[in-house]
Amino acid sequence: MTKHFQRELEKIKKKILSLGAMVEERVRMAIKAIEEFDGEVAKKIIFSDHEIDEMEVEVEEECLKVMALHQPVAVDLRFLVAVIKINNDLERIGDQAVNIAQRVKTITKKERFDFVFDYSVMAEKAASMLKMSLDALVNMDDDLAFKVLLLDDEVDEIKEEAYNLIKRAIPENPDNVSYLINLLLISRHLERLADHATNIAEEVIYMIEGEIVRHGKR
Amino acid sequence: MTKHFQRELEKIKKKILSLGAMVEERVRMAIKAIEEFDGEVAKKIIFSDHEIDEMEVEVEEECLKVMALHQPVAVDLRFLVAVIKINNDLERIGDQAVNIAQRVKTITKKERFDFVFDYSVMAEKAASMLKMSLDALVNMDDDLAFKVLLLDDEVDEIKEEAYNLIKRAIPENPDNVSYLINLLLISRHLERLADHATNIAEEVIYMIEGEIVRHGKR
Repeated sequence: MTKHFQRELEKIKKKILSLGAMVEERVRMAIKAIEEFDGEVAKKIIFSDHEIDEMEVEVEEECLKVMALHQPVAVDLRFLVAVIKINNDLERIGDQAVNIAQRVKTITKKERFDFVFDYSVMAEKAASMLKMSLDALVNMDDDLAFKVLLLDDEVDEIKEEAYNLIKRAIPENPDNVSYLINLLLISRHLERLADHATNIAEEVIYMIEGEIVRHGKR
Repeated sequence: MTKHFQRELEKIKKKILSLGAMVEERVRMAIKAIEEFDGEVAKKIIFSDHEIDEMEVEVEEECLKVMALHQPVAVDLRFLVAVIKINNDLERIGDQAVNIAQRVKTITKKERFDFVFDYSVMAEKAASMLKMSLDALVNMDDDLAFKVLLLDDEVDEIKEEAYNLIKRAIPENPDNVSYLINLLLISRHLERLADHATNIAEEVIYMIEGEIVRHGKR
C-alpha cells in the first residue's frame, strides 16, 4: 500500500467518523425532544438534516475517487465498500431522527396529554447501539459489534411493550388517539434507528471476519 | 474492457435482475395477502425470505470479486457500487414484504372486521415503482427513473389518507384497535417499500448522470 493511498484511507475513516458523530448528536437531540416534549429541539433537527445529506454525498464521492485512483483489492476494497454502506445507514439514521422530530413537533402543538410511555430506556439503548457500532468500526472490534446485535433484540422487546401498552390505552382515550398513534410511531422510528445501527455493526463484523453474518447466519 | 470483464458485468446484471424479479414476486404476493386477507400466502412469504437473503449475499460477493479482479474505473466502477446498493435495497424490500405478511397473519387470526381501507391503489403504485426502477436499471433509462420519484409522493399521500381514516375509525371501534393499528402499519410498510424503490431509481439516475439526485437536490 502506498503512503498516499494510506493517507486517503485515513481521511475517509476520519470523514465517516465525523458523519457518525454528527448523526449521533442528532439522535441525542431527538431523545431530548422526546423526553422533554421539546418542539424547538425538534425543529432544529429537521432544519439541519441537509448537513448530514451533504456529508453523505461527500463520503461516497471520496470512496469512489479513491477506488478509481488506487484500485484497492482484498481488505482495502472491502473496507471501502463497507464505508459506502455504513455511510448510507448513517444518513438513514439521520432521517429517523427527523421522523422522530416530526412526531414530537406534531404532539407538542396540542396540550400535553397525561399518558406517557417512558422511551428513555429504549432511546438510550438505540443511541448506545449507534455509538458502539461506530466504536467497533474505529477499533475494528468485532466483539463490540456483536454486542450491538444483542441489544437490537432488547430494543425490539421494548417496542412490543410500547405497542401493547398504547393499544390498550387507545380505547380508554378516544380523544387522544392521534397523540397515542404518534407515540407508537416514535417507538417504531427508534426501532428502525436501532436496525440501521445493527446494519453498521454487521458490516463491521463482515469486514473483520470476511464472513457474512447478516441474515442471522451466526 | 476485456471480453472476460464484460461477461462478468453481464452476469452481475443478470443476477441483480433475477433478485429483482424474485423480490417483485414477493411484493405481488404481499399485495394478494392484503387484498384477500390470505394468511396462507402471508406464511409463504415469511418462509421463503431466506432465498432473497442468500441471493443478496451472492450478488455482493460477486461484485467484490469482479472489482478486485478487474479493477474497474469510471462508469464500470460506479455501476458495481450502484449494484451493491441496489442489492441492499432489494433485500430490504423483501423484508417489507415479510413485515406486511406478518401483519396479515396477525389480522387473519381473528374474525374479519368490517372496516376496510382499500390498499390496492397504494400497493399497485408501490409495486409499479419497484418494476419501473428495475426497468430503468436494465435499460439505463433515467426518464423512467424520474417517474418513480414522482410516484413516491403519491404513495406518501395515500399513506396520510390511510392514517387519517384509521385515526378516526379507532375511537368508534374500541374493540378493534389492534386490527386497525395493523392496517395502519401495513400502509407504513408499503410506504417504506416505495422508499426503497425510490432509492433504486435514484441510484440509477446517479449512475447515468453521474450526478447526485439524492436528498432532493434536483
